[in-house]
Amino acid sequence: MASTPGSKARGSRSKLRLIEAAYDLLGEEGYHAFSARRVAQKAGLKPQLVHYYFRSMEELLIAVFQRSSARYFRLHDEALSSRHPMRALWALNSNLPEGKRMTEYVALGKVYPGLREEMRHTGERFRSQQIEAMERIYTERGFDHTIVGPHGMVLLMSAVARNFVIEDEVGVSLGHDEVKQLIRQVLDRFDPLDADELAGADLASHGA
Amino acid sequence: MASTPGSKARGSRSKLRLIEAAYDLLGEEGYHAFSARRVAQKAGLKPQLVHYYFRSMEELLIAVFQRSSARYFRLHDEALSSRHPMRALWALNSNLPEGKRMTEYVALGKVYPGLREEMRHTGERFRSQQIEAMERIYTERGFDHTIVGPHGMVLLMSAVARNFVIEDEVGVSLGHDEVKQLIRQVLDRFDPLDADELAGADLASHGA
Repeated sequence: MASTPGSKARGSRSKLRLIEAAYDLLGEEGYHAFSARRVAQKAGLKPQLVHYYFRSMEELLIAVFQRSSARYFRLHDEALSSRHPMRALWALNSNLPEGKRMTEYVALGKVYPGLREEMRHTGERFRSQQIEAMERIYTERGFDHTIVGPHGMVLLMSAVARNFVIEDEVGVSLGHDEVKQLIRQVLDRFDPLDADELAGADLASHGA
Repeated sequence: MASTPGSKARGSRSKLRLIEAAYDLLGEEGYHAFSARRVAQKAGLKPQLVHYYFRSMEELLIAVFQRSSARYFRLHDEALSSRHPMRALWALNSNLPEGKRMTEYVALGKVYPGLREEMRHTGERFRSQQIEAMERIYTERGFDHTIVGPHGMVLLMSAVARNFVIEDEVGVSLGHDEVKQLIRQVLDRFDPLDADELAGADLASHGA
């Protein structure tokens, strides 16, 4: 392709369209549908363009994963800087917009080492940020570390949220109510609402 | 094929070989490799035989999942009837021999509704058995249910174990040590070793 500014802009638009098509495809149909032909078809472009813009399907997959991470990063950042970081993080992770793609990425990470490395790196980054936020909460509110410290609290909450996402996907629900109640107790203790918020939450739950 | 007793036995041997080949393939290479051609190749049989024995790839997949469940059922049963059911269950689930296949099944469950139904059914069955065992432990030892009852305990432990399996797969490890220590405390409280066992465990950990 000629490298005039116009064709360059068109080029990066096509590349973005391919990434978006692959992202949607992975969410809707899973990695079974992840082929150059299907991605191009969904983007309304020629299959050859996939190979033009991406050296391999792994490279495209990493771009798709980065799109998921960027989206999660924005929501994650909002949650951690909100007035109730623990509640916001719990709500985000248990209703993860990227949840549908999560097990796909894990499964694909076994096939593509580059994707696995990207996931490892990104996963550790998110976890460090959560631990930092949790350490701040513990310090500000004077929580003791004896039963469970900030590292453990972050891992436990993310493990439980992830488990709900996976089990909802499969349709398993036994024991969920009891754990959701336990989580509410943990949040009430570690990230309590003030009186105004409680009144608001009450109204909201009556409305629901 | 003629239905003489000899050919029938040969037939079910071939069918079993296909299931075993598919099981191994899924563990080694993930669902990317899950095609009639690859399964037959690994079993050393003709691809047409896959279609002869299984009406669809989903039917083969369900047979593979049932093989995983049967294996897990045996180990699960041993764990729950052992002297230390909570410890045994924790050890089993965090070093799950079927762990490598777990995310594959979840990802594939989105593509094949019959597999998803089988997983839901099996998952709920294992969870009920664990809850039953945990209720027995709670009753025998007089544990109170206020912080976390048997349902919640089972779900929490399985969520955390599953999370370790997934994160080990990806290579994420931040916070693991703290949670492993917490789990040890929970096990020491809820499923304590007696003096003899403690001495044995001590020797074992010195040897490790």
